[in-house]
Amino acid sequence: MESIKAIFGHLNEIRFTFTAITKIIMAHQKPGIPKGTRDFGPAEMARRNYIFDTIRAVFRQHGYVPIETPAIENLDTLLGKYGEEGDKLLFKILNSGDFLTGIRQTDVTGENPNALSLKICEKGLRYDLTVPFARFVVQHQHEIEFPFKRYQIQPVWRADRPQRGRYREFYQCDVDIIGSNSLLNEADLICIIDEVFSKLSIGVRIKLNNRKILAGIAEYIGQPEKITDITVAIDKLEKIGSEAVTQELQLKGVTVQGIYKLEPLFAISGSNPDKLEKFGKFLQESPTGLKGIEETKQLLQYIMPLKLKSDVELDISLARGLNYYTGTIIEVKALGAEIGSICGGGRYDDLTGIFGLKNISGVGISFGADRIYDVMEQQGLFPNETAVSSRVLLANFGEKESMYSLDLLSKLHDAGISAEIYPDAAKLNKQLSYANSKHIRFVVLAGANEIREGLLSVKDMENGEQHKVKGEQLVQFIAGDK
Amino acid sequence: MESIKAIFGHLNEIRFTFTAITKIIMAHQKPGIPKGTRDFGPAEMARRNYIFDTIRAVFRQHGYVPIETPAIENLDTLLGKYGEEGDKLLFKILNSGDFLTGIRQTDVTGENPNALSLKICEKGLRYDLTVPFARFVVQHQHEIEFPFKRYQIQPVWRADRPQRGRYREFYQCDVDIIGSNSLLNEADLICIIDEVFSKLSIGVRIKLNNRKILAGIAEYIGQPEKITDITVAIDKLEKIGSEAVTQELQLKGVTVQGIYKLEPLFAISGSNPDKLEKFGKFLQESPTGLKGIEETKQLLQYIMPLKLKSDVELDISLARGLNYYTGTIIEVKALGAEIGSICGGGRYDDLTGIFGLKNISGVGISFGADRIYDVMEQQGLFPNETAVSSRVLLANFGEKESMYSLDLLSKLHDAGISAEIYPDAAKLNKQLSYANSKHIRFVVLAGANEIREGLLSVKDMENGEQHKVKGEQLVQFIAGDK
Repeated sequence: MESIKAIFGHLNEIRFTFTAITKIIMAHQKPGIPKGTRDFGPAEMARRNYIFDTIRAVFRQHGYVPIETPAIENLDTLLGKYGEEGDKLLFKILNSGDFLTGIRQTDVTGENPNALSLKICEKGLRYDLTVPFARFVVQHQHEIEFPFKRYQIQPVWRADRPQRGRYREFYQCDVDIIGSNSLLNEADLICIIDEVFSKLSIGVRIKLNNRKILAGIAEYIGQPEKITDITVAIDKLEKIGSEAVTQELQLKGVTVQGIYKLEPLFAISGSNPDKLEKFGKFLQESPTGLKGIEETKQLLQYIMPLKLKSDVELDISLARGLNYYTGTIIEVKALGAEIGSICGGGRYDDLTGIFGLKNISGVGISFGADRIYDVMEQQGLFPNETAVSSRVLLANFGEKESMYSLDLLSKLHDAGISAEIYPDAAKLNKQLSYANSKHIRFVVLAGANEIREGLLSVKDMENGEQHKVKGEQLVQFIAGDK
Repeated sequence: MESIKAIFGHLNEIRFTFTAITKIIMAHQKPGIPKGTRDFGPAEMARRNYIFDTIRAVFRQHGYVPIETPAIENLDTLLGKYGEEGDKLLFKILNSGDFLTGIRQTDVTGENPNALSLKICEKGLRYDLTVPFARFVVQHQHEIEFPFKRYQIQPVWRADRPQRGRYREFYQCDVDIIGSNSLLNEADLICIIDEVFSKLSIGVRIKLNNRKILAGIAEYIGQPEKITDITVAIDKLEKIGSEAVTQELQLKGVTVQGIYKLEPLFAISGSNPDKLEKFGKFLQESPTGLKGIEETKQLLQYIMPLKLKSDVELDISLARGLNYYTGTIIEVKALGAEIGSICGGGRYDDLTGIFGLKNISGVGISFGADRIYDVMEQQGLFPNETAVSSRVLLANFGEKESMYSLDLLSKLHDAGISAEIYPDAAKLNKQLSYANSKHIRFVVLAGANEIREGLLSVKDMENGEQHKVKGEQLVQFIAGDK
């Protein structure tokens, strides 16, 4: 007996070990996705689509039309457009087939992977929507009627170090007008910003600046060649404070006298017209600076009849780091949210120049869908109904009853009511729990008795009430409740 | 004098040469996109969105909810799922940073680029939506309420040789139910097919088969192990004719007796119930075959109350080449179009098994957006209004007049009417031509005279008529015409 027990003991031990090994293997094989990428389930999709649909509707209302460009672009379209750092963040696609043709062993020294990567990769994933848009405009210039008002909502990819709120695959929602230098375009974009965030119930402050004012400031302190260093530094004013900005300016070679001259400029406060008035006095000697002030005045005037709900604030510390901006700069901050800008953009006078089409001025903004999502979640701004799928579930009581339910289903669909039949004759509790998890409002119970009597039971999942409804009146009952 | 002329002549020559060289350089720099990819301009986008919106609305009406998965998947998720040929067609993404770490010069022999590619690439672009969906279901199994009805409309990438109608980046529209083996699901999908194509005005024939019937046939001719070869061969019946199919069957080792036994099966005609009756007699000895016939009978019964507009035809030559189908097989042909199937799919009993989740049966179909687009274009089925953008253009007569127009614009937008102001005070002809090219219905002329009199001119671009409308009645006038 003892030995039999021992054998059983051993067998059990073996079994446990086997289970443990299987578990380890299974855990190892558990499928995942690359870091910095995301799956979106139905609930998230409903909320994301709520954001995209709102933005898209406003774009359309203002006469913008959609385009789409391929995810894959030739690398020579992308390289050199985002600075050295940007080039490193491009995802490159390995040439298909024998990518090693023409590559020598000596190319693979490990010392210059970048040079080799360009020999084995001709294509890359797009990094933003702006450069592909510029490429699109140049390539299709003869089919396009200018001014061209386009929007584009597509994902972009960056090999950035993933962290909270920063992803390697994310959507951008861009809207641009190209082929017109009228400030009415800026006014239109600001109106779009105001409408989008008011529809999403996000309180925002719209900040404005003008690159020409920044250039004027650099001239005013006698160092026009330092404009980039100055704008990069003062852009950080809100983040790191004035002392750190002063340090950075000194480091970048801005003279002490220059820094002294900057200080009163950044102390200027008051209403937007007040500020413009005061800046004007400082920048009297700079035609560029005065042009910037003139443009901003005109823009503020154009905005007046639009009765915006959001505050618009002139902020000369706004620079957005992008060198291709030449006029108006726009940035949007969500009120009461500890998060960077949720929308931004500006005027660029020569974006298509990089692809050989000169003198086409454009202005555009980009909405950051992920940050907008985070703000809405933090502030509880998503409406409840975004998660709804079907309005009606027909419970399943078996094959015969299903034939009756299929007829009801067909009638509901004909009436434009979203409805589904539970596919298996599972326990009613399970079917109700399914309806619950999908936020389905009505469950129709058509069992043998109900069918015989021609009187259906309709359970309202919102309040638990049960109604008796004639089969031929079901559509009317559901539609009447809408 | 002569020598001066000669010098001018030379200078001219040099100038022409220079211009020619510049032109060559410019032409060379002309931006393009990778072969097999496409840009979609506003007109194409409107038509594509018409297709996607129609499909999406039907999916939702039937209670399917959307998900999205990343474009980039880990290569070990994708590899080995599409056969050897499929593996070759995967776009691989070069590891970012120093991808050569750990690679030796001797790895680069040029003889085995594939092995090296797996050392320098961990990620790839998704090849279809089915495998990412299976991965999604396994990864999120504890958050999902089964049966799970999802749809997914996203692009996929294949390094295929581009040709007419075949692209390297294209959209798939997939709809699947997973976690239920009820044939009601198949009935639901067939109903979806019928509704989608009826809404798009495409006449179709829906072809049905069942993998178990195919297995039964292989058993009936005494070569059950040849099921794949047999299905691959008879799948080509329509394309290459019965003689060529017979040849291929012989080549694949199907016996002459087997081929003789097949012939009467493929000669069977009549209504669907007739065909099932006759097949039943041949497959009496095969329990699998009889199960397939039983399932198809049941499915046809479930379809009856749905009153489909399209013909449904049982076709035992239908195989769709995909080995993972285990039950119903569905394929849709457009009537009157020389094009392959525009939709197809089937039942799979173990798709999630590859990622470690066993015994989850599913069924799904995929709509081919590009082929649907081609059929609709060939048959002139796109409605005209798909290309509309704004409804109203406010003509621009200068800065002062713009202030008045901006007020009108704001009121039109408040009333939900899409409208835009022409950004520059260009010649009226140019502004009208812009309205024309964008299919804008009304152009509002508010020049100095009109503003003074408070009476606007509204030009109806559809019939050329001009109306006099009071400023405060513009919204009403435009809205009334809707």
